[in-house]
Amino acid sequence: MTTNTQRPIGVFDSGVGGLTNVRALMERLPMENIVYFGDTARVPYGTKSRATIETFSMQIIDFLLEHDVKALVIACNTIAATAGSKIRQKAGGMPVLDVISAGAQAALDTTANNKIGIIATNTTVNSNAYARAIHSSNADTLVRTQAAPLLVPLVEEGWLDHEVTRLTVREYLKPLLVDGIDTLVLGCTHFPLLKPLISQEAPDITLVDSAITTAEATAKALASAGLLNTDNPSPDYRFYVSDIPLRFRTIGERFLGRSMEQIEMVALG
Amino acid sequence: MTTNTQRPIGVFDSGVGGLTNVRALMERLPMENIVYFGDTARVPYGTKSRATIETFSMQIIDFLLEHDVKALVIACNTIAATAGSKIRQKAGGMPVLDVISAGAQAALDTTANNKIGIIATNTTVNSNAYARAIHSSNADTLVRTQAAPLLVPLVEEGWLDHEVTRLTVREYLKPLLVDGIDTLVLGCTHFPLLKPLISQEAPDITLVDSAITTAEATAKALASAGLLNTDNPSPDYRFYVSDIPLRFRTIGERFLGRSMEQIEMVALG
Repeated sequence: MTTNTQRPIGVFDSGVGGLTNVRALMERLPMENIVYFGDTARVPYGTKSRATIETFSMQIIDFLLEHDVKALVIACNTIAATAGSKIRQKAGGMPVLDVISAGAQAALDTTANNKIGIIATNTTVNSNAYARAIHSSNADTLVRTQAAPLLVPLVEEGWLDHEVTRLTVREYLKPLLVDGIDTLVLGCTHFPLLKPLISQEAPDITLVDSAITTAEATAKALASAGLLNTDNPSPDYRFYVSDIPLRFRTIGERFLGRSMEQIEMVALG
Repeated sequence: MTTNTQRPIGVFDSGVGGLTNVRALMERLPMENIVYFGDTARVPYGTKSRATIETFSMQIIDFLLEHDVKALVIACNTIAATAGSKIRQKAGGMPVLDVISAGAQAALDTTANNKIGIIATNTTVNSNAYARAIHSSNADTLVRTQAAPLLVPLVEEGWLDHEVTRLTVREYLKPLLVDGIDTLVLGCTHFPLLKPLISQEAPDITLVDSAITTAEATAKALASAGLLNTDNPSPDYRFYVSDIPLRFRTIGERFLGRSMEQIEMVALG
């Protein structure tokens, strides 16, 4: 039987974007086994209703619990925003980390003028989850959110440095810059790939990439639960997806920053 | 029991785009009852694998057959391109119309120089279905296809006359214009909403909108099968979707061109 610390961390997302979290976890916690699930057959979630996202998320949690995970990382902002509390309920006492809690805390630690901007999907913006998370720590913070749905397909098209992407970013950032934010949370796993372009368009703004802060929060939570794996020099990484479309590996490896070996397709629902 | 001619036409799509076909059918066949299914919980299909699209399509057909449809209209180019033959097999002898067959025929009827361009989703382009359909009628036609995936989210964002959309259209059309096409098939149900902008960028090109030609083909097929409804002054329109996200009605009515009364959410799969 697998000992508690040897059990894998379960990381999940609506698609491939959550691989940026896997990458950050591999770097921060190089001894941990990881099981990833990406719902590529039903991606994107960011334009769907809360009820549908909850249903899909519960199916994913069932799948990961069958893989005997010791902790869960919600890598998708949209899932964290809409189904976070249902997931925590279902997970029992297991540590559950998510990109919104981690991103909100990192933004509060970063801002000097107490004005934070968020760009995210429609559903994440409509959920108001970032503002709630930030205001629960500091009610005086100005939080400005902006839905930026087109950035997802632009990243997937690979137009990371294209004039069309630049104009789109400029349009989305305009109201946030008018409000004088000094910190911008990249509230969707796709957006860190646009960091260079966003920095050019908003040179005075500090960008918060929640993949890194989520990995840090995961390390702390595992340590305090006595679940850190300290004896596993060749960790096991398993990638499960609900569809493997053309160019899947290419796009996936762009997010992960390394090759993906064990990819398996499974049907949910 | 419902007589044969009173049975509804089943129209389906991966999402809301197929409502442009419903609109064309309402105008061309104002006595017909229509049942529509849009798989809004799993949209878009255009970036998914053939196997997944086939599975999803078979679930939709089961649903429509339960509604006792007398004919099927595949309103989604991606479904027509990948699952068309499986659907025809499952439908038995029932008339099955699809946007690709109708669009290919209309393009052949339109072109003067025998050079046809197609813009569509990634999966439709990779299927090569338009070229196959056109070449089966005329092997000498030059067919140039271009994947234009970003136009789908741009339409859904409502940026129908935005500089970003204009630049994106210009980039996608460039290779087709270099090849000297005189006819362009709008090979995705979202694209007809960009007709004004595309016409400005390609003023000498004739645009083929397959919603209208598919409605025409449906009228012919029903007539020749003795299934035309000629006695139904108050037709029944039912809209089923697998998710009703925010702004669903707004976007849906933009495609349908009128209000949607009976919308119901159903779970598939």
